Amino acid sequence: MQRSKLVSQILEKKNYLCVGLDTDTEKLPAHLKNKPDGIFEFNKRIIDATLEHCVSYKINTAFYESMGTKGWEIMQETFNYIPDSHFKIADAKRGDIGNTSHQYAIAFYETLKADAVTVAPYMGEDSIKPFLSYKDKWAIVLGLTSNAGSKDFQQLILSDTGKPLYETVLETVAKWGNIDNTMFVTGATKADFFEDIRSVVPEHFLLVPGVGAQGGSLSEVSKKGANKDIGLLINASRAIIYASGGEDFDLAASEAAKEICNEMKGYIV
Amino acid sequence: MQRSKLVSQILEKKNYLCVGLDTDTEKLPAHLKNKPDGIFEFNKRIIDATLEHCVSYKINTAFYESMGTKGWEIMQETFNYIPDSHFKIADAKRGDIGNTSHQYAIAFYETLKADAVTVAPYMGEDSIKPFLSYKDKWAIVLGLTSNAGSKDFQQLILSDTGKPLYETVLETVAKWGNIDNTMFVTGATKADFFEDIRSVVPEHFLLVPGVGAQGGSLSEVSKKGANKDIGLLINASRAIIYASGGEDFDLAASEAAKEICNEMKGYIV
Repeated sequence: MQRSKLVSQILEKKNYLCVGLDTDTEKLPAHLKNKPDGIFEFNKRIIDATLEHCVSYKINTAFYESMGTKGWEIMQETFNYIPDSHFKIADAKRGDIGNTSHQYAIAFYETLKADAVTVAPYMGEDSIKPFLSYKDKWAIVLGLTSNAGSKDFQQLILSDTGKPLYETVLETVAKWGNIDNTMFVTGATKADFFEDIRSVVPEHFLLVPGVGAQGGSLSEVSKKGANKDIGLLINASRAIIYASGGEDFDLAASEAAKEICNEMKGYIV
Repeated sequence: MQRSKLVSQILEKKNYLCVGLDTDTEKLPAHLKNKPDGIFEFNKRIIDATLEHCVSYKINTAFYESMGTKGWEIMQETFNYIPDSHFKIADAKRGDIGNTSHQYAIAFYETLKADAVTVAPYMGEDSIKPFLSYKDKWAIVLGLTSNAGSKDFQQLILSDTGKPLYETVLETVAKWGNIDNTMFVTGATKADFFEDIRSVVPEHFLLVPGVGAQGGSLSEVSKKGANKDIGLLINASRAIIYASGGEDFDLAASEAAKEICNEMKGYIV
């Protein structure tokens, strides 16, 4: 998806919500648990119920890979089911030497037909570049993640700049790509860091997980992270898809998404 | 696989070769290219031909994921086909927040039944710990990789220690696990760094890619990297599996593996 299309969707709908499909077999409502196509039916009904309240879906590959071949099939069906009006993210955190990253780019951009894939930066330039060579496809590179472990390496200070590693990652990766093919993952639980982040990458889109179950604040992130194009995709997974564990799970998901979406309207002026 | 079993296999066979199954559809011999089960047949024949010349196989997940559901099926079949005498590595470079890494652990340890999975360290402790909670299963964490991009972040100097990031990664991750459940990826193209690496993690196993197509030297790595248990798994992929592009590909692979294996015998005294 082209940047201009994504931006106009966001501004028209006054909405920058991404719904995360981290669908866990153990958390399926009872009536879907033992159905052979229970997970796909769950995803389908979540998508139907939330489509008008979001601009993007994020599929977390781990929850499908844990089911093996069947899981990969459900992941493919789910990507196929999401309409092209919505920005499709494969949350895969991949990254390897060049010829291998190229294979991952094929997997996510060509085979699964995602618009974007999340990428881990540890292996450097040749591990990221293959994800930047497709027109209107996006690498969403880990910057400062939402989890406690982000302090272990991402926040260590580098001697040549006196700045934390994650800032150097943002600055360096931003030069390899551009604002039309690169986004960064920056966790909502780190709202205090957003001013620093925006000083390094003022124009890039940020994918922001961590609102909801992980405790990040939508209001704070929106105030500190938005730029002139909004430039944010805020992800919520568990807070939406498990809003109810009963047969009304899709209605509850719709309500939960709508609530976030209504709050967002207040932040887009 | 238990560490003691791996070490005894290596010492008995005088062999620490890992054969990398980075099987690329485009590089299949002509007579297998258009067969529906061409890739699995290729893998099967490579495994049959190299079994006595190696102690481990490494399956690079990217080359299978690029084929979608069918690829995941072939990956599962290939893992099933490798005998339990050999150490099975899923080269997947995964890593995510805790509950997601746990799903990846299920995918690779339980569903695919690998002994080990490669893990990217950028997201820190809670992203790695779920891979360390299975008995006799191994997280192989990226330390200093074989590619050019390893200089971009891994080799940056940290201000509090005056040492490069990768050394801190080795030192820190080593404390989260132990020598029975943690290995590190250290590229053969960085043989000059092996003394430093061994000063930080003297007892851990190192998975060493980069011999062969990437230019690393088996002799140098063996001299500088071996410890009292050998403590090395040296991977070769393209140099073995594509040793011939013809119908004799398995014979050529056997010869190529045997040659490396014979050289290794000289390094185990």
